[in-house]
Amino acid sequence: MKRIVLLRHGESMWNKENRFTGWTDISLSEQGITEAYEAGITLRTSGFDFRLAYTSMLKRAVKTLDCVLDAMDRSWVQVEKSWRLNEKHYGALQGLNKAETAALYGDWQVYKWRRSFDVAPKPVPEISEANPANDTRYRDVPRCELPLTESLKDTVERVIPYWKCEIFRQLAYYDDILVVAHGNSLRAIIKYVKGISDDDISELNIPTATPYVLEFDDSGLLTNDFYLGDEAKIREKAAAVARQGVSKP
Amino acid sequence: MKRIVLLRHGESMWNKENRFTGWTDISLSEQGITEAYEAGITLRTSGFDFRLAYTSMLKRAVKTLDCVLDAMDRSWVQVEKSWRLNEKHYGALQGLNKAETAALYGDWQVYKWRRSFDVAPKPVPEISEANPANDTRYRDVPRCELPLTESLKDTVERVIPYWKCEIFRQLAYYDDILVVAHGNSLRAIIKYVKGISDDDISELNIPTATPYVLEFDDSGLLTNDFYLGDEAKIREKAAAVARQGVSKP
Repeated sequence: MKRIVLLRHGESMWNKENRFTGWTDISLSEQGITEAYEAGITLRTSGFDFRLAYTSMLKRAVKTLDCVLDAMDRSWVQVEKSWRLNEKHYGALQGLNKAETAALYGDWQVYKWRRSFDVAPKPVPEISEANPANDTRYRDVPRCELPLTESLKDTVERVIPYWKCEIFRQLAYYDDILVVAHGNSLRAIIKYVKGISDDDISELNIPTATPYVLEFDDSGLLTNDFYLGDEAKIREKAAAVARQGVSKP
Repeated sequence: MKRIVLLRHGESMWNKENRFTGWTDISLSEQGITEAYEAGITLRTSGFDFRLAYTSMLKRAVKTLDCVLDAMDRSWVQVEKSWRLNEKHYGALQGLNKAETAALYGDWQVYKWRRSFDVAPKPVPEISEANPANDTRYRDVPRCELPLTESLKDTVERVIPYWKCEIFRQLAYYDDILVVAHGNSLRAIIKYVKGISDDDISELNIPTATPYVLEFDDSGLLTNDFYLGDEAKIREKAAAVARQGVSKP
């Protein structure tokens, strides 16, 4: 059996403030660090042993991975960082409070921006520092590939080639692989792997720092998928993610 | 101009207890973490900007690198971890207190074990957990390459192929490269790069968490090398390293 574990980063400072983050590079909160260590302990006690891990180029994911590996006493694990695992780019919404935005534009509009498959928020201006082309870390990425905003559809088109050509094919060499990324880049992967429809994906809410296990047989067929940890706690965490975009939760 | 910065990890728990560490995987002390952040700030304010970094497979070096990159707001930098950058394997001395060992075997014998070029301490037994072949992290390394003990000569022979074939050749693609490693793996590199003799290398003591800059011209010739930071403080730190192996410092 081969396993890939997907892990959304722990709570960030902007999760805490309920702001659209996207590609803005925001640190973990104290609670986020604690959550990440707990995820590492859960993985270790559940018998996972990684030699290879992937993460995005955003520090809330990198730091979550560092904490997980520290908790597992596996700081030596090989880590690949890719912009393709970054969060969905939230365009001009980045930095805005989700509930305030909902009060301004209506809950339904914010739901569409957050959860519809092919609606993207307004793009950031070319000259904005939220344009990734103005950020040195993406210097080696062809400019035409860097987004000014994204729908989930755009995110899927960016993430899945990396999943196919890089992460998934490593199952030929590794039994357990860890991927630490973001709510929407992980939704993109789960949509693809489980064949979830464009409509149904809107209802999928991924809780922070909760390991999601994908099990594959030797031919690469998905045979099982589940969250690790206490079920009631996971349900409550996922419901809290769903409530974020409502003006009066 | 091209630059490679060498950085010894911050103080570890066993540096603090003055014990031979070698390949034993010991965490940083609180002071070590602080030192690492200070090194990151020094590098940032001195105008260094890394896109690529190397470290060993030992957590005191990995964690130092994480802290440096965090301080530089460069968590997204690509990191390669290699056993070839590990500390010198101290054989049967690993875990022993340096001053106590000096009291037992004499200052001169400990000086030879620590600083002579081709004298290796007694090897660890094959069945010992200090034999790297019994450590899962080195599973992919050919067993005949894994040491049971090392002289500095052995460390040089392990480190320099990696320096030549991997780190140094990346100067073709990167202007600044960071290497976070250990007292003896860095002595091996400096010996090679500066052509220091087998005798003279014994007097080279590398202070913890103090960036050492190697400048190269476009043909790859070393043009300059120096420590970054306050000179008096660096001298005192290097002298403290030299004193560690003396029974009554």
